Amino acid sequence: MAKRKLGIAVVGIGGAVGTTMAAGVELLRQNAIDTTGLPLAGFDELADCTEIEFAGWDLFDSDLATAAEGHEVLTLKQFAAVQRALGEKRPWPAIADSRFLSNIAGTNVISLSRVRDAVEQVRADIREFRAQCDAVCVVNLASTETLTEADNSKFASLEAFEKAIDANAADISPAMLYAYAAIAEGAPYANFTPSLSADIPALVEFAEQNKVPVAGKDGKTGQTFIKTVLAPALRSRALHVDGWYSTNILGNRDGLALSDDGSLASKVKTKSSVLDDVLGYEVEDHIVDIRYYRPRGDNKEAWDNIDISGFLGQRMQIKVNFLCRDSILAAPLAIEIARCLDLARERKEFGIQEQLSVFFKLPMTRADRPEHAFYLQEKMLLDWLNKA
Amino acid sequence: MAKRKLGIAVVGIGGAVGTTMAAGVELLRQNAIDTTGLPLAGFDELADCTEIEFAGWDLFDSDLATAAEGHEVLTLKQFAAVQRALGEKRPWPAIADSRFLSNIAGTNVISLSRVRDAVEQVRADIREFRAQCDAVCVVNLASTETLTEADNSKFASLEAFEKAIDANAADISPAMLYAYAAIAEGAPYANFTPSLSADIPALVEFAEQNKVPVAGKDGKTGQTFIKTVLAPALRSRALHVDGWYSTNILGNRDGLALSDDGSLASKVKTKSSVLDDVLGYEVEDHIVDIRYYRPRGDNKEAWDNIDISGFLGQRMQIKVNFLCRDSILAAPLAIEIARCLDLARERKEFGIQEQLSVFFKLPMTRADRPEHAFYLQEKMLLDWLNKA
Amino acid sequence: MAKRKLGIAVVGIGGAVGTTMAAGVELLRQNAIDTTGLPLAGFDELADCTEIEFAGWDLFDSDLATAAEGHEVLTLKQFAAVQRALGEKRPWPAIADSRFLSNIAGTNVISLSRVRDAVEQVRADIREFRAQCDAVCVVNLASTETLTEADNSKFASLEAFEKAIDANAADISPAMLYAYAAIAEGAPYANFTPSLSADIPALVEFAEQNKVPVAGKDGKTGQTFIKTVLAPALRSRALHVDGWYSTNILGNRDGLALSDDGSLASKVKTKSSVLDDVLGYEVEDHIVDIRYYRPRGDNKEAWDNIDISGFLGQRMQIKVNFLCRDSILAAPLAIEIARCLDLARERKEFGIQEQLSVFFKLPMTRADRPEHAFYLQEKMLLDWLNKA
Amino acid sequence: MAKRKLGIAVVGIGGAVGTTMAAGVELLRQNAIDTTGLPLAGFDELADCTEIEFAGWDLFDSDLATAAEGHEVLTLKQFAAVQRALGEKRPWPAIADSRFLSNIAGTNVISLSRVRDAVEQVRADIREFRAQCDAVCVVNLASTETLTEADNSKFASLEAFEKAIDANAADISPAMLYAYAAIAEGAPYANFTPSLSADIPALVEFAEQNKVPVAGKDGKTGQTFIKTVLAPALRSRALHVDGWYSTNILGNRDGLALSDDGSLASKVKTKSSVLDDVLGYEVEDHIVDIRYYRPRGDNKEAWDNIDISGFLGQRMQIKVNFLCRDSILAAPLAIEIARCLDLARERKEFGIQEQLSVFFKLPMTRADRPEHAFYLQEKMLLDWLNKA
Repeated sequence: MAKRKLGIAVVGIGGAVGTTMAAGVELLRQNAIDTTGLPLAGFDELADCTEIEFAGWDLFDSDLATAAEGHEVLTLKQFAAVQRALGEKRPWPAIADSRFLSNIAGTNVISLSRVRDAVEQVRADIREFRAQCDAVCVVNLASTETLTEADNSKFASLEAFEKAIDANAADISPAMLYAYAAIAEGAPYANFTPSLSADIPALVEFAEQNKVPVAGKDGKTGQTFIKTVLAPALRSRALHVDGWYSTNILGNRDGLALSDDGSLASKVKTKSSVLDDVLGYEVEDHIVDIRYYRPRGDNKEAWDNIDISGFLGQRMQIKVNFLCRDSILAAPLAIEIARCLDLARERKEFGIQEQLSVFFKLPMTRADRPEHAFYLQEKMLLDWLNKA
Repeated sequence: MAKRKLGIAVVGIGGAVGTTMAAGVELLRQNAIDTTGLPLAGFDELADCTEIEFAGWDLFDSDLATAAEGHEVLTLKQFAAVQRALGEKRPWPAIADSRFLSNIAGTNVISLSRVRDAVEQVRADIREFRAQCDAVCVVNLASTETLTEADNSKFASLEAFEKAIDANAADISPAMLYAYAAIAEGAPYANFTPSLSADIPALVEFAEQNKVPVAGKDGKTGQTFIKTVLAPALRSRALHVDGWYSTNILGNRDGLALSDDGSLASKVKTKSSVLDDVLGYEVEDHIVDIRYYRPRGDNKEAWDNIDISGFLGQRMQIKVNFLCRDSILAAPLAIEIARCLDLARERKEFGIQEQLSVFFKLPMTRADRPEHAFYLQEKMLLDWLNKA
Repeated sequence: MAKRKLGIAVVGIGGAVGTTMAAGVELLRQNAIDTTGLPLAGFDELADCTEIEFAGWDLFDSDLATAAEGHEVLTLKQFAAVQRALGEKRPWPAIADSRFLSNIAGTNVISLSRVRDAVEQVRADIREFRAQCDAVCVVNLASTETLTEADNSKFASLEAFEKAIDANAADISPAMLYAYAAIAEGAPYANFTPSLSADIPALVEFAEQNKVPVAGKDGKTGQTFIKTVLAPALRSRALHVDGWYSTNILGNRDGLALSDDGSLASKVKTKSSVLDDVLGYEVEDHIVDIRYYRPRGDNKEAWDNIDISGFLGQRMQIKVNFLCRDSILAAPLAIEIARCLDLARERKEFGIQEQLSVFFKLPMTRADRPEHAFYLQEKMLLDWLNKA
Repeated sequence: MAKRKLGIAVVGIGGAVGTTMAAGVELLRQNAIDTTGLPLAGFDELADCTEIEFAGWDLFDSDLATAAEGHEVLTLKQFAAVQRALGEKRPWPAIADSRFLSNIAGTNVISLSRVRDAVEQVRADIREFRAQCDAVCVVNLASTETLTEADNSKFASLEAFEKAIDANAADISPAMLYAYAAIAEGAPYANFTPSLSADIPALVEFAEQNKVPVAGKDGKTGQTFIKTVLAPALRSRALHVDGWYSTNILGNRDGLALSDDGSLASKVKTKSSVLDDVLGYEVEDHIVDIRYYRPRGDNKEAWDNIDISGFLGQRMQIKVNFLCRDSILAAPLAIEIARCLDLARERKEFGIQEQLSVFFKLPMTRADRPEHAFYLQEKMLLDWLNKA
């Protein structure tokens, strides 16, 4: 394993995924778990998982042990094993803006009276953290922000974006500000959420100019992962998809955020874009539902019904019911993304890291059209990892 | 499309799959259906689907229209459109041996009093059919034969096998005799069933010696298709498979044959071998059930429950319910296999055609270990088709 | 069987359910089907099913054979058998009001320039039909109307309602006008839809005054049927329902109507009221989704996920997937309802017929609170049918 | 609540169900859980749940805390709360007979060299336990015994049975010996397993003669519970069941026992008898599969597929997937059965207690034919409980 101490600064470190990442690395350090769930465990050029340090911002100031206890992701034994280590970490104040996140209100906040000052505060946090590590990546795991009718001209160039920051423009979201701060500090940045962030022209320009690797967006964990595995196979067998109905029930903080219509729109958008692209034709009846449903907590459930036609035009159905654990699927992918971005930095490959597409529902790409088919994405990543 | 008239001689032509193949080609000729379900529709080097002729053997002597009506696979409109064309075709008498197929008894049979004579009869059928076509392939779609405790030394070399035929040996199955006859006549041969057939050393030797392409075995249509699509993806995400329970209910003639324990054993064997191979470790709780259940007729149903562990060793479940139509999935694959074998013959590539692995549950290979992962199999086939 | 010719006048006779009712009775007459699906087939006091005549109103003027063909509910053989009989029937013009039904626009309409005149037209249709039968019932099977913010005072008494009709009031829905006309003509009336209709005080008053049996509302066919069967059993075992997520996909004209938000609200309301009532406590996470999804046509599908707690507070899940046929379930119930209303009329039992609760999602009752538990409802009906 | 201390002597007290019963009562005593899962919590004439004492026999001599830990049914917090109380209880040696239970071998055994002596030992255990309580019931929760080809004449009368005991007859099973001992001691007896036990004529005769209430057999917990709830509803709607496929996967000690063919036969037999009886006709395609599948442990899963025909003979499907917890469902029912038997004893009602049918897959009855429909069974029980 590469000998460097990688710091991961998480936006939303106190959430279910953030605390699971921190707990998982601590349990790996203690040899209490194996590397199940970490797809790139065997690649030595990446930073060693047990050398990773965590820090981050959160709207709630609970220490990470308290936060983890509330999310009920860890078993009682796992919680006991990490309680001390996580209890020592407390989130930095976070940027709060109720225009972008209405259902979640915390008190551990950076004042937004002057946007530029908020950015400077985030930059200072990153710098301070980097002083304790060999390198730092920033990963956005905050609740999904609402889709707004923004004035896109502000996002069209770095120059316009800088001016908008200085003018305290209301339509710049927290997710964009964190991305901006990370790039400004030369810290590789990944957006694991559906929020609009580094995927605006201004920030892509900034990442290239400042030589910073960036990747996103929206981690491909459960239903969309299965969708991008199955859909290419149906295409391979020349089975025509007549309709695909996907519904999701989830009850964690992520679900609560999504019970806001605007946030839901962001999420549904990244989930919906996939299918037509993989199949090569428009599926007229592709429906994606997401409902906040509390009995299951962090244990997300997806139910997919797929209507297909085969030979002689005859109809068949496939139903997939995935009883998954949101944070258990997301946390290791977020770790792998950070390790890959760190490797890209080492290899001096900057800007959009398209080879990380396999980790995202809506991959950022240099070209117009992302690859969504899982096996092609995976090949892209493995080829990159295996190159001399 | 390649301009040659391909004849497909089907063992079990009167079955649900055989009649669906014949009806499908007729409907394509009439432009009544499109090429949905035919994965290789776009490859011009293959024989044109609308130029295919069908013939074959069956234990029942009904003409193909009568047989198709009984299987209830075609819609009434489709049946009406093909009734005349199929009504003109009547199966040749078939080799019947109740030691290998106890639940199905037909009357359209070739005497087995002397095995060599039966083989000669099958060879004569093939020769006569070839006189009407540019080329002939033989595809085995007969009901699954029982697994027997055979004296394997008879199958170990062509010489031993020839002697066993001449000695009227009881443990040579009908499936082997058809394969032998096809190879003897230089007709490419595919085994779409789980029965032991061209996959014995004697017949592989014969195929190489006589310069005949062969492929098999057991068409990968429903549940195993899904399994070889999903399992590699779970491996890619480092999700550990703790158990995989697969059950199937089906009510067609294939199902009736499988209600015999010996035939069931054949089938379960080809379905079971897949998973450990794809994952790279042994799944201790991999269970495959197949039950004869009549209400659904040809509309097979599979239910899979997959138990997986992810990060922190935590448990999740995936359930897949495939309401499929057996013959609708199988018929176009059997057509594509025949077209590929015909192309192999044209290209003078003989013996085992490993590049057809994507079509089979238990692919015949030259090397020890077959590839089961769907996307790797598909790549192998596409590379072969696309080579100059 | 009781010897009388029962006429059923259907609002929406050209729909999938209406045409299935007419086809079913014709097939029974021809002895082409048995009484499967007709729960009260053995009760001789009811009008004989084979003596039933159909007529009705529809926004589309296609004859019933043409309409039935479009709905694709009948098999080709069944369609051929009823084509002549159904082809002779053509719907009367219907009351159209786009304020209550925005997604469906037909041309076979009664002018609403004067509401009173429209009512008189409907009454004349009923009178004319009754001249050909021994008795007539009216059943509402029209598409679900939108829930409006009506001025309820107009519906509070018969007097106010009559005035509102004469004043051409905009918030009186077509469903109410048909119910009013039926009651005015002394024809028993049932509302098989979720629309607001005979369940307003004005019309209940009218039914009692005019001695007319009425029943409703919203036929209990698929998901809610299962819900009112399972939920009482969970209560009986003292299993606590923590959440119940119900989703539905359907693609027929009913589904299209429900893709309008207002109509959807009507439907979800009748589906939602059931659970808390049966269980005796409020299920906080009871969610009902209904989505218009075309690939399945009339073949509705429901998926329910039920989260329950048992002994020691431990969690379990039940999932029910109902692949049902909307019209196949609804048509026989609508027939049975009409036969029961006809019997109530014979027995001189007027006003709300609470004993028909088993057929409805939201039963009309004399008392405040309907019984929803299926077996208690059924007992009520059987006791009524069996009384001397 | 009735003021008496009820002792429950459990055959198989160290199993998952037995330890869950004991833990549950202890947690109720501690007020750590509520009465969720206990259907008869509100009936004051029954013995108070918090006054119940447990004892019993087991092939393994671990104390109940150690046994409970191994079954992983309790949460860690629940285990901690009951560890001391359960740790003080250790099972009496049990009757072991490998002819009836081949897959489970324990060391805490009563010698069977003389059957009569074994019976006397069990009787002495019961007497000693009763000395500490106001009354004692015996409940059989041992692993399912294999079905044997017994000489039924030995079971036909009490006299023959007594002789067989004295003759050390090999075909008398442990389950029968426990039932005999309980009845001999005047202790009410329930058989919660599918094993042949008190349901032989000899023991029914003994129970009546000795004035002892008995009930059985095979607790109706998961799949069969759902089946007897749904099937009557399908009958009520005149929907015809064309086939019912039930499969079960379970991984606890009960599952291991069932992986023996003979035990499996016992279990499948009690599960299968239900359906035809409820529907009133023979379902030709009723299949019940049970498979030992370890990843889920005590978390049993059932998957049912039901094929039904409705009006016009058209086909529909219902699929039910029950992710249940075997012991969580079984333990409270076993407690309720014991409390009801105790009440029967108080009320001086002896012999077969048919009113407990709701708790059993194959209810013992005085008449020929048991009632299987859940709501009719429940009514029978409630009527009995509510009678003055």
